[in-house]
Amino acid sequence: MSKYSEIKHHCYQANLQLPKLDLVVYTFGNVSTVDREKGVFAIKPSGVPYEDLKVEDIVIVDFDNNIVEGSMRPSSDTKTHAFLYKHWEHIGGICHTHSTYAVAWSQSQLDIPIFGTTHADHLTVDIPCAPPMADDLIQGDYEHNTGQQILDCFEEKKLSPKEVEMVLIGNHGPFAWGKDAAKAVYNSKVLEEIAKMAYLTLQINPNAPRLKDALIRKHFERKHGKDAYYGQGC
Amino acid sequence: MSKYSEIKHHCYQANLQLPKLDLVVYTFGNVSTVDREKGVFAIKPSGVPYEDLKVEDIVIVDFDNNIVEGSMRPSSDTKTHAFLYKHWEHIGGICHTHSTYAVAWSQSQLDIPIFGTTHADHLTVDIPCAPPMADDLIQGDYEHNTGQQILDCFEEKKLSPKEVEMVLIGNHGPFAWGKDAAKAVYNSKVLEEIAKMAYLTLQINPNAPRLKDALIRKHFERKHGKDAYYGQGC
Amino acid sequence: MSKYSEIKHHCYQANLQLPKLDLVVYTFGNVSTVDREKGVFAIKPSGVPYEDLKVEDIVIVDFDNNIVEGSMRPSSDTKTHAFLYKHWEHIGGICHTHSTYAVAWSQSQLDIPIFGTTHADHLTVDIPCAPPMADDLIQGDYEHNTGQQILDCFEEKKLSPKEVEMVLIGNHGPFAWGKDAAKAVYNSKVLEEIAKMAYLTLQINPNAPRLKDALIRKHFERKHGKDAYYGQGC
Amino acid sequence: MSKYSEIKHHCYQANLQLPKLDLVVYTFGNVSTVDREKGVFAIKPSGVPYEDLKVEDIVIVDFDNNIVEGSMRPSSDTKTHAFLYKHWEHIGGICHTHSTYAVAWSQSQLDIPIFGTTHADHLTVDIPCAPPMADDLIQGDYEHNTGQQILDCFEEKKLSPKEVEMVLIGNHGPFAWGKDAAKAVYNSKVLEEIAKMAYLTLQINPNAPRLKDALIRKHFERKHGKDAYYGQGC
Repeated sequence: MSKYSEIKHHCYQANLQLPKLDLVVYTFGNVSTVDREKGVFAIKPSGVPYEDLKVEDIVIVDFDNNIVEGSMRPSSDTKTHAFLYKHWEHIGGICHTHSTYAVAWSQSQLDIPIFGTTHADHLTVDIPCAPPMADDLIQGDYEHNTGQQILDCFEEKKLSPKEVEMVLIGNHGPFAWGKDAAKAVYNSKVLEEIAKMAYLTLQINPNAPRLKDALIRKHFERKHGKDAYYGQGC
Repeated sequence: MSKYSEIKHHCYQANLQLPKLDLVVYTFGNVSTVDREKGVFAIKPSGVPYEDLKVEDIVIVDFDNNIVEGSMRPSSDTKTHAFLYKHWEHIGGICHTHSTYAVAWSQSQLDIPIFGTTHADHLTVDIPCAPPMADDLIQGDYEHNTGQQILDCFEEKKLSPKEVEMVLIGNHGPFAWGKDAAKAVYNSKVLEEIAKMAYLTLQINPNAPRLKDALIRKHFERKHGKDAYYGQGC
Repeated sequence: MSKYSEIKHHCYQANLQLPKLDLVVYTFGNVSTVDREKGVFAIKPSGVPYEDLKVEDIVIVDFDNNIVEGSMRPSSDTKTHAFLYKHWEHIGGICHTHSTYAVAWSQSQLDIPIFGTTHADHLTVDIPCAPPMADDLIQGDYEHNTGQQILDCFEEKKLSPKEVEMVLIGNHGPFAWGKDAAKAVYNSKVLEEIAKMAYLTLQINPNAPRLKDALIRKHFERKHGKDAYYGQGC
Repeated sequence: MSKYSEIKHHCYQANLQLPKLDLVVYTFGNVSTVDREKGVFAIKPSGVPYEDLKVEDIVIVDFDNNIVEGSMRPSSDTKTHAFLYKHWEHIGGICHTHSTYAVAWSQSQLDIPIFGTTHADHLTVDIPCAPPMADDLIQGDYEHNTGQQILDCFEEKKLSPKEVEMVLIGNHGPFAWGKDAAKAVYNSKVLEEIAKMAYLTLQINPNAPRLKDALIRKHFERKHGKDAYYGQGC
C-alpha cells in the first residue's frame, strides 16, 4: 500500500464533490491536498472525467513539480498548485474550477464587491480579481506564473491568504484554498454563490451600496473572531 | 424521552426541507418551531450540515435565550427568533435562509414590488426590506437588535405580521414565519420565487406597472378572505 | 367504478407532469381534460400538493361549473377552464401554471416576440399577453371573466385558438391548451422555454430583430402544414 | 443482425446524453454518427421522445439523403447532417440542439466573443453566427441550404471546421461536430456553457475586453498543439 494513501483518498473525495456541487462540467476543475511532512501533494490527473476517476489515479507531486508517484499525467494546472503550496505554508488544500458565475466575473476583470453578510461571513474585502498576465509571462512558464500572479495580486492589495481564501484570475476563473481540500472546495462553492448574488444585486440596483464596515466586521468576527459563536467551536 | 420530542421532530423535519427546496447551500439557514405552553422553541444547532443533522441535535431555548435542553450550541441567529416569538404571540415557526434571489433584493436594499397575482396570493403589499441597522446596534446585541429592526420596520410601514409573513433584512437576507414551522418554510420558498419573478420582470420591462388594487384584493381574498374558495377549507 | 375513470386518470397523469417539468412549486398550477360526449371535464382539486394527489381526488365538473362527481373542491381556476371548453369546442385539455419566465412576461404586460425557429415550430405569431381586466370584471365573476378576457384578446388580435395554443394573462400567468391534457402540458413547457429564450435574447441584444416571415412560415409548415415532415406522421 | 449495429448503438448512446446534459427538452435535438467506409450515417428518428427511443429506431441514411435502413422517418434536419458529412470528410459525428443560451445568441444574431480561457481551451476565435438565409433558399431545399449556409459562413470568415467545431445558425440554434458523435455532443455542451458565461460577462461588464492573443494561443496550444500537455495524451 502506498504511503500516500491517505492524501490520495482525501484528494479523490474532494474532487468528487465538484460535480455534486454543480461547480464543473466534464473535467473543468481540479482539487489537490498536501502532506507537509512528506513535502508532496496529491492532485487529480489531467482530463479524466469525474465518473471514471479512481483513487489510484491520483498523482503525487512534490513542490518542484516532480511526479513522486502515479502513472498518469497530473492536472495541467499542477504548477500553480505547487507554487502556492511552496509560498503559502499554512494551506492544506487548493481547488480550481470554471464555475459559471465566478468565471463571468473573471472575464469581466472586476473584483466582486462585498454587498452582504453572506460575503462578510467568509471574508471582509471584495473578492480580488488578478489582472491578466503580461505576454512574456504567458509565453513562459504559464502555470507557474499564474501562481506568481496570485501572489503579486495579494501583495499589491495587501491581502492575507489566511483571511482571504479565494481569488479570481482575470479571463480565466477562480482558485480557492483552505486548511484542507474539503475547505478549499467549500470556499469554491461559497465563491460561486457570492458571485451569483453580487451579479443579481447589480442587475436589480446598479447603485447598490457596499456593505457598511460595522456589518462586515460583525459578521466576520462572529464566525472567525476570537469570540466566535457560529458553529460548534470544534 | 424528552418532553420536547414533538417540537424537536417538527423542527428537524422543517430544517430538512431547506436543501430539498434549494433554499440553502451548506448551513446557510435555520428553522425553529415554538411550544407556546411550555414557553420554549426548538431550533437548529449552529453550523451543522443538513445531511448530518439528527433529531436529538435540535436545541430547546426559551424566549430569553437560555438553553433549556440540548448539548449543542443553537443557531447564531437564535436571539432573532426569540425576539420575534416574544413580541409576536401568534406565530408558531420562523425560517431564515440566504436564498439567492431574496438575498439579491436584500443587498439591493429595495422592497420587492407587487407585480402579479403570485405575489398577491400571499400578501397585498410590497415585500418590505428593513434598512441596515445603525452602527451602535450592530456592535451591541446584534441578533437581538435584528429582531428589533424587523419590528421597527413593520411599525414604520404599518404592516401586520399576521398579514405579511416575510421580510428582507437589508444587506443580509430573508426571514419568514407562520402558524408553524412548515408554513414558515413555505413562505421562504414563495418569497424566493416571487423575488425571482420580480427580478425578471424588471429586466424585461423596467417600467412594469405595479399590480392594480382590484387584482391585489381579489387574489388575496380568494385565498385568505372570509369567503376564501382556494384549497379544501381545512 | 366511476364512468369518468378514464379522464380522471388522464387528468391525474397530466398534473403529475407539472412538478417533473419544473413548471410549478407547491400547488401553483392545474390541468384539466375534457370528455365532450359526457359534457364534463376532470380537474385537479384546489390546493392539494402534487405528491399527495390521488386519482380519486380528481373532480368532475360540467361546463356550467356544477360538480358532477368528487368530494373535493375543484381548482379555484375551474370557471376559466369551463369557459374555454364551452367556447372552444375543439380543445381537449387545458393547463395553467405560474412558471417563472412566463409569469415574468405576464407581469411585464408584453407579448413575447417571435425571435427564432423554436417559437416558429409551434406558432407563427408573438405569444399574446391579454391586458389586465377592468375593475368591475375583477370584482365580479373573476375566473369566468378571465376566460372572457382570453376570448376577447384572441378576437381583438384575430388569432385562432387552433393555431395559437397559449396565452399570457397580464399580471397573472400562462394558460395553454391542446387536443388533450398531455398536449396542453407540452405547450406550457414549450411556452416557458420560449419565454426564457426571448428574455435572454433581449438581454444580449435589445435590438434583436423579429424572425423573418419566410422562416416563420417554413418552420411552422414543416411541423404543422399539409406536407409536414416532422415526426412520424401519426 | 444489421451491419450498421455499431453506428446505431453509438448514435443511440450519444442521443441519450442530450437530456442528461440538459441540452434539450422534449425532442428538440438530434445526433448522428457516420460510417465513412459504408458511406452512411445513423441518425435519430424525427419527433421520438428520448425516453421512448430504442436502438432499432435509429435510421441509416446515405449522403444523398436516401434511407438505407430503418422503418422510421429520420430527423427533419437530416439533410443538413448529410450535407456536412459530404463536404467535410474528416468529421465523424454531428449534434444539433436548441439549448437555451446558444439559442439566445442565435436569436441575437451575434457571434459569441471570446472572453476567457474556457472558450480558448476549445477554439481560438469568436463562435460564429451564420446570418439568416435569403428567402428563396428558405423556400427551397431548406435543410440542405442550412448546410450550405454553414459552409458559406466558414468560407467567408476563413474558418476551418477542424479547428472550429461549432456554429450558430442565426434565429435557429447551434450545430456542433467532431471526430465522433460523443465529441459532437461534448462540443454542444461546451458551447452552451461558453454561451452562458459570455452572456453573464456582458451583463456584468458591457465593456469586457476580448481575451488577449497570447492567452488565446497559450490555452489552445496546451490542449491541442503539438506539445499539448492537457489530458493523458491518448
